[in-house]
Amino acid sequence: MSTTKPVHKRRSEKSRRAIYDAALALVAEVGYPRTTVEGIAARAGVGKQTIYRWWSSKADVLLEAFLDLAYESGQDPEQRQEQPEYAIPDTGDLAADLKAVLRATVDELRDPRFEGPSRALAAEGVVDEELGRAVVAKLLEPSLQLYADRLRAAQDAGEIRPDLDPRIALELFVSPLAQRWLQRTAPFSYEYTDTLVDYALHGLAPR
Amino acid sequence: MSTTKPVHKRRSEKSRRAIYDAALALVAEVGYPRTTVEGIAARAGVGKQTIYRWWSSKADVLLEAFLDLAYESGQDPEQRQEQPEYAIPDTGDLAADLKAVLRATVDELRDPRFEGPSRALAAEGVVDEELGRAVVAKLLEPSLQLYADRLRAAQDAGEIRPDLDPRIALELFVSPLAQRWLQRTAPFSYEYTDTLVDYALHGLAPR
Repeated sequence: MSTTKPVHKRRSEKSRRAIYDAALALVAEVGYPRTTVEGIAARAGVGKQTIYRWWSSKADVLLEAFLDLAYESGQDPEQRQEQPEYAIPDTGDLAADLKAVLRATVDELRDPRFEGPSRALAAEGVVDEELGRAVVAKLLEPSLQLYADRLRAAQDAGEIRPDLDPRIALELFVSPLAQRWLQRTAPFSYEYTDTLVDYALHGLAPR
Repeated sequence: MSTTKPVHKRRSEKSRRAIYDAALALVAEVGYPRTTVEGIAARAGVGKQTIYRWWSSKADVLLEAFLDLAYESGQDPEQRQEQPEYAIPDTGDLAADLKAVLRATVDELRDPRFEGPSRALAAEGVVDEELGRAVVAKLLEPSLQLYADRLRAAQDAGEIRPDLDPRIALELFVSPLAQRWLQRTAPFSYEYTDTLVDYALHGLAPR
């Protein structure tokens, strides 16, 4: 945080951070249905009105707390949604680029700061359609679009068939990891995500 | 149900069915955490002891209710787990067989008898690791093994590369549908599942 910011701004940022931390910790501990704005406020050591000044509901607080966790790098939060700092690298080697990003995703899914709150939010999204759609629109789909962009660049470079729909194609390597994580259908590792990329690019049928 | 069965057996089957129906309806309505053996018994019109005579917990009742829903065809329930009636067809055309089974899965995921209780159980499995692992072991993995078996037959027939791991390969078309359903990342249709099979078999890279 810059030391040139005015005092009232520094205080806001400190409260905002305390509220995000409280919201993520609480939802991991008691689940989404029992997380309340009052509970977040108490844990963050702020008044309930401080939260309602910035957010309209617990869903809003939580979704922004996740965006902050994902883009945690000290950037101005107002800039993040419009200009995500992440993009999938384009070294000209699609397989290597996808493997690198999926390995980073494996690390993120194992990060305990991320796992508890993410599971709580994902679980509620399975049964609460409105929340589920908000989570997808604000958190998941923007990440998936980065894969779609990288696949489009690969189409231009002739590395991917020109007739494929990138938004479907990306699911061949993204969704298996998501399902192993969400449903614990099987363990996952770097070797596993590397294998997914190879199978998806080259296909299951003999060439 | 055969009319030659003794009366006490007919009564058991009728109670069993009422208990399954009550368990599935209740979990869809109030969620897994608030579903109780008492609540299931009350709704089924049986005593709590009737349930505890056959099952040790609400998780046991629910898992068997799902097995019954999946294999609902009037077979003797005792036979079902050992001898599932389902197998993926093997007409010699792998793409056609996989497309047919995935289309049937699309229909099943849209069946309202299935959707509510399935979402409630899947959501709880995301946050409750013990339940999640039981759901996978009893309900999900046996279905996935049918795909693995079909892919092994295709390897023998030269339709799939011999060096692939069938348990990973099947995820390229099964997991995308699972994620679209669970997380509502996008709509799904027969056209979508057909596309998944084509992309997985032939790969994203040009041949």
